[in-house]
Amino acid sequence: MTGLDVLSQVASHLQMGMLSEGLTQVLIPAAALVGIAFALLQWYLVSKVNVSGDFSNGYSGKLIEEEEDGIDSLEVSIKCAEIQNAISVGATSFLFTQYKYLSVFMGVFAAIIFFFLGSVKGFSTKSEPCTYSQGKLCKPALANAAFSTLAFLLGALTSVLSGFLGMKIATYANARTTLEARKGVGKAFITAFRSGAVMGFLLAANGLLVLYISIILFKIYYGDDWEGLYESITGYGLGGSSMALFGRVGGGIYTKAADVGADLVGKVERNIPEDDPRNPAVIADNVGDNVGDIAGMGSDLFGSYAEASCAALFVASISSIGISHDYTAMSYPLIISSVGIVVCLITTLFATDLSEIRDVSQIEPSLKRQLVVSTILMTVGIAMVSFFALPSEFTLFNFGTEKAVKNWHLFFCVTIGLWAGLVIGYTTEYYTSNAYSPVQDVADSCRTGAATNVIFGLALGYKSVIVPIFAIAVAIYVSFSLAAMYGIAVAALGMLSTIATGLAIDAYGPISDNAGGIAEMAGMSHKIRERTDALDAAGNTTAAIGKGFAIGSAALVSLALFGAFVSRAGINTVDVLTPKVFVGLIVGAMLPYWFSAMTMKSVGSAALKMVEEVRRQFNTIPGLMEGRAKPDYANCVKISTDASLREMIPPGALVMLTPLITGTLFGVETLAGVLAGSLVSGVQVAISASNTGGAWDNAKKYIEAGASEHAKSLGPKGSDAHKAAVIGDTIGDPLKDTSGPSLNILIKLMAVESLVFAPFFAAHGGLLFKFL
Amino acid sequence: MTGLDVLSQVASHLQMGMLSEGLTQVLIPAAALVGIAFALLQWYLVSKVNVSGDFSNGYSGKLIEEEEDGIDSLEVSIKCAEIQNAISVGATSFLFTQYKYLSVFMGVFAAIIFFFLGSVKGFSTKSEPCTYSQGKLCKPALANAAFSTLAFLLGALTSVLSGFLGMKIATYANARTTLEARKGVGKAFITAFRSGAVMGFLLAANGLLVLYISIILFKIYYGDDWEGLYESITGYGLGGSSMALFGRVGGGIYTKAADVGADLVGKVERNIPEDDPRNPAVIADNVGDNVGDIAGMGSDLFGSYAEASCAALFVASISSIGISHDYTAMSYPLIISSVGIVVCLITTLFATDLSEIRDVSQIEPSLKRQLVVSTILMTVGIAMVSFFALPSEFTLFNFGTEKAVKNWHLFFCVTIGLWAGLVIGYTTEYYTSNAYSPVQDVADSCRTGAATNVIFGLALGYKSVIVPIFAIAVAIYVSFSLAAMYGIAVAALGMLSTIATGLAIDAYGPISDNAGGIAEMAGMSHKIRERTDALDAAGNTTAAIGKGFAIGSAALVSLALFGAFVSRAGINTVDVLTPKVFVGLIVGAMLPYWFSAMTMKSVGSAALKMVEEVRRQFNTIPGLMEGRAKPDYANCVKISTDASLREMIPPGALVMLTPLITGTLFGVETLAGVLAGSLVSGVQVAISASNTGGAWDNAKKYIEAGASEHAKSLGPKGSDAHKAAVIGDTIGDPLKDTSGPSLNILIKLMAVESLVFAPFFAAHGGLLFKFL
Repeated sequence: MTGLDVLSQVASHLQMGMLSEGLTQVLIPAAALVGIAFALLQWYLVSKVNVSGDFSNGYSGKLIEEEEDGIDSLEVSIKCAEIQNAISVGATSFLFTQYKYLSVFMGVFAAIIFFFLGSVKGFSTKSEPCTYSQGKLCKPALANAAFSTLAFLLGALTSVLSGFLGMKIATYANARTTLEARKGVGKAFITAFRSGAVMGFLLAANGLLVLYISIILFKIYYGDDWEGLYESITGYGLGGSSMALFGRVGGGIYTKAADVGADLVGKVERNIPEDDPRNPAVIADNVGDNVGDIAGMGSDLFGSYAEASCAALFVASISSIGISHDYTAMSYPLIISSVGIVVCLITTLFATDLSEIRDVSQIEPSLKRQLVVSTILMTVGIAMVSFFALPSEFTLFNFGTEKAVKNWHLFFCVTIGLWAGLVIGYTTEYYTSNAYSPVQDVADSCRTGAATNVIFGLALGYKSVIVPIFAIAVAIYVSFSLAAMYGIAVAALGMLSTIATGLAIDAYGPISDNAGGIAEMAGMSHKIRERTDALDAAGNTTAAIGKGFAIGSAALVSLALFGAFVSRAGINTVDVLTPKVFVGLIVGAMLPYWFSAMTMKSVGSAALKMVEEVRRQFNTIPGLMEGRAKPDYANCVKISTDASLREMIPPGALVMLTPLITGTLFGVETLAGVLAGSLVSGVQVAISASNTGGAWDNAKKYIEAGASEHAKSLGPKGSDAHKAAVIGDTIGDPLKDTSGPSLNILIKLMAVESLVFAPFFAAHGGLLFKFL
Repeated sequence: MTGLDVLSQVASHLQMGMLSEGLTQVLIPAAALVGIAFALLQWYLVSKVNVSGDFSNGYSGKLIEEEEDGIDSLEVSIKCAEIQNAISVGATSFLFTQYKYLSVFMGVFAAIIFFFLGSVKGFSTKSEPCTYSQGKLCKPALANAAFSTLAFLLGALTSVLSGFLGMKIATYANARTTLEARKGVGKAFITAFRSGAVMGFLLAANGLLVLYISIILFKIYYGDDWEGLYESITGYGLGGSSMALFGRVGGGIYTKAADVGADLVGKVERNIPEDDPRNPAVIADNVGDNVGDIAGMGSDLFGSYAEASCAALFVASISSIGISHDYTAMSYPLIISSVGIVVCLITTLFATDLSEIRDVSQIEPSLKRQLVVSTILMTVGIAMVSFFALPSEFTLFNFGTEKAVKNWHLFFCVTIGLWAGLVIGYTTEYYTSNAYSPVQDVADSCRTGAATNVIFGLALGYKSVIVPIFAIAVAIYVSFSLAAMYGIAVAALGMLSTIATGLAIDAYGPISDNAGGIAEMAGMSHKIRERTDALDAAGNTTAAIGKGFAIGSAALVSLALFGAFVSRAGINTVDVLTPKVFVGLIVGAMLPYWFSAMTMKSVGSAALKMVEEVRRQFNTIPGLMEGRAKPDYANCVKISTDASLREMIPPGALVMLTPLITGTLFGVETLAGVLAGSLVSGVQVAISASNTGGAWDNAKKYIEAGASEHAKSLGPKGSDAHKAAVIGDTIGDPLKDTSGPSLNILIKLMAVESLVFAPFFAAHGGLLFKFL
């Protein structure tokens, strides 16, 4: 098809208000490829910054240009390269070790999926009558088992790839950001932001492309059996999220064990600054940012994206669209994501080309503008897709009844998800940025010590759930009322449609954090550290915003998955007034606490070991404090690695086994209760934990920066109030970077796992009640 | 009726397996009167301890008997009396001020009840056809409105009375416990325990008696209309719990503002011991124990008791028992409580007369034995009541269907509630007593500072919810399956049947705490302080156990009330798969966070004010630190009082207005969702908050006591580890004594309020959806 053909097709379809199947088949991969090309372009632009240790492109030495600020010697640059290399090697080797363990898990769990789903019809290879397309024959359960397993493996691999690529670009960009900071804050910002964009676009585009190709390939076997096809494809979401679970938990424990351990001895006992190269845990700490905040976050959001798409596709496949085989309408969720990539591309240009950062105070507004611009543009995009891709009316399956839905209903569903995301983002910013009174109040409470700081911080976190929950509730109410569970699924996709931008501003945070670390370790001038600190402070807020998006979308996604599970399990009501459901509800609401207890204790214990090791090195390595001897970084990396790999297993098992055990022993009603309970309770714990942690971190930064009279009265570094703030910051670390974000995955993963195993539970579940 | 008549009647009924109506009418008030008499006897025994300042009985001076330990002078005794007097006056005056405000609230809310319920049938005075007793005429809605209002006022007054009497006996007993501590730990224990028993028995007996009399009096008007009678009587529960809300929140803010403020300056800045008379906030702190832990707890448990009884009676009134007017079977909930009083009476003798405390190590086992003994005896009691008071089979109304229930089903329901309480009690003890590894681990984490202490403490609290939630879930599953919502209501009553014992061991805690404070302030010898400290440490654990009971019973009670509400509102399913219910669920799950944010922030702000005042006094009153000048206690009392009265309004309004607004604007389905959500989420927050706080408190005590090699390695007082432990203790104060326990009331009160207003919501609710 030539470009002209495409254009004429578009024109003709504008008249009839419908995209053709052929055009849809071109548009989706085209958008994905454009996204990948854009990501590579950004990578190329970042790579033009030279790190002197990186001799690959052969022109090291030209590095220090005339306009560069400060007279940092070549030696400093080489040091940067060395540190970057150490961080990159550490992060890569950790991820490879982690993946080794995960490949065992993947193999075992793939086998479980195959056997459980295969057993539904006793491993029969006979075709079955379809559930929804009456009178037709669908593929055998055994084929669904095989393809679900395959989809699971594809999802897992894509998730791992998303995390890994993110880590690679982040460790590639950190030193480059540091070096650019010598030229000015604007240049450093662009470098960090472009690197974040690389990750955002690669992830969004890869996720879409792999899903699209999988569907095409699966179709070769499934042909007309769309029910079976989209049932199997849900394995993709399960694969994505189960890898994300271990990525988030493992990475979270890794990074916070190192961070807490480094701070407790370095900042509190030895009074040396953050990221001081004398601190033996400093490399582990910086590695942690990349494996936890970057790789973990990437896998997490990829998982949300994959699950939302799978939930939407599954629900659509049993609607009139799916039964009448309307390919374009069926692809609505994928087209939304395609348009999202294009919208984010335009949005990125606003930050990189259409405006310039000249001053520190412009950083945060510029990042916030990204959110607003992408949301406004996307609203237009959603309107277009809704009118061109969907029939003006179709019917959805709504738990035993049928529901007529119009295309503009769908427009509202996707849009309200998108805008709810913006509201959550702005609320999160309000509660975690030190530009507003909540964080300033927390900082002020440090006057009377750590105890009041903690009390105020916890109260802030609790309070910060109010607006996001109302935003989620409104989004759920509107989309649920308009288009049942399909509405929820596309609302989740709406929130995630600007994922490339969301990830870009989110990944920007840890990259800047690392850049600051490298500046400190390389002994660069105070001015440069100040610039990277300013980037980092904005990054703290954007990281909190990113977590807000992640949890908001997780709530919508898991509700959509929950609805898909209920449909697939063949139950029409989940009545709280039955004992089976109610006990599920209350036990489900308990799971986030159980899970958080595990992850927090893990971080605590690993941090204690780290503290002992750091203390030991300070006490036994002569000349370490004076900077004459080098610490043993590798030992600290090993402690974090070992702790992370060992400690990620129990919480992982809790999440993976709960649906299996509940479904098998207690049946689908109790499992539905568990999912609803963990969803409504987990969202609260996750939001409050993330925001409490973010607020403590920025309260500390507020006192350190001393930018106002009030802040000055609390500081400077080392004052009693500052010490109290550091304690709060340390407590917040596992809350905001381990427990909180992992809970997103807990609620999503249990839901998608239930969805995948639903036929098994419906056929063989509830053993205990059958037995009694 | 003579005693012989009663006996012969009992004998004849043993044969026919049924209690007669006449005997039931005698047994219930008789048990209540026995309870009151026993409480007065205990009070008399406590009063025999002379406080020398108390000249009323004219033989002061005889106080120091020969076997007394130490040579504390008469002067010390007089000082004790003075301090006791100050505490008592402070507590009484605070409660009277609080009651003044509450009387305004009571009046306004009584008017709201009357007008809302009266408006259901447009203030018509015409009799209506009954809902369940078909073909009969029931009293007009206006009469129900009037009697509900009356019941509300009666419940409120009884609640206030329960709190007030508890406070009176506690402030009467504190100095007596201190003085008895001179004779030995056993004597002091008996005094504190007897005083706790006074409160426990008075509360249990009064609650029963007032309810019984109200039913008798209401019957004069209602006659055969039992539906209307027991509908109106639910107002009793609402009155009880709404006073408890303000008692808990107001008292909690009072006590913790004083406690946190006193500790932050006294212990942390000035390095003076707890309860040192030089600390200006010390009287406010000790007053706080009595108005928060005693009066608040009393109102809370009275509320639970009243609500559980009302829920059970309401559900029974629409069962075949109620419709066939079987008076004895109808009174089953009241007979259970009557037997409970007798069982607790026998149990008390085990602690006061059948055994003696000779050593500090016997205190905790002796208190724990109370729980076990009362549980075992009560199991027998429940069996007897179930077989003699209930018909062998009857039918219950189960959300639109009918359910046949046997008397032994009911036995299991009540018993499983009772034993679930014991499991919760023991789990709470395991997680909060420093005899076990969880608290010792938290203490150990203080080695690396306050941050790890807080991380470990939070993780402990999260973990401690697991077993209680499973215990509650099993109790709910069994009782719900066997006897629907009636099963849940009587399970709650089962847990509360040993309330007299539960309250006795719970009130014992703050009394011992006060006794220690008085010993310190009166400058008594170190030996005496050690004894009261040992009593207090056990008291910390029993207080946590009491909180565990309170929250466990609150969960069951509110579920029962929820069921009663749903029945009364005329809805048969609460389906999570409808948008109305789901948004209610997620917003309901958010409310405990919103509420906790308010209460914690209130304590934090009030504590900051207290800190400033205490600092001001230390800085401006010459000779205060040297003990030559007296601090201005009254100013600190005023700060706590003002903060408490002002700050209790917003959280109170949140709880009281949520059901009204939700029901009126969004209707009964959404309200049902809100209730279920706040229940399943609030239980977790409450348990984890209470246990985290209790664990931190005892971790600190563990380090201070230095009873093991491990503990010694962390101490002594003033070591870095101890300082970290003090920070944790301070953070835990609002969690365990303000936010956590108030959440019980949040979940119960919203449910009972919904129940009372159900006819209004069913008739006029859901305005917003009607409008759209």
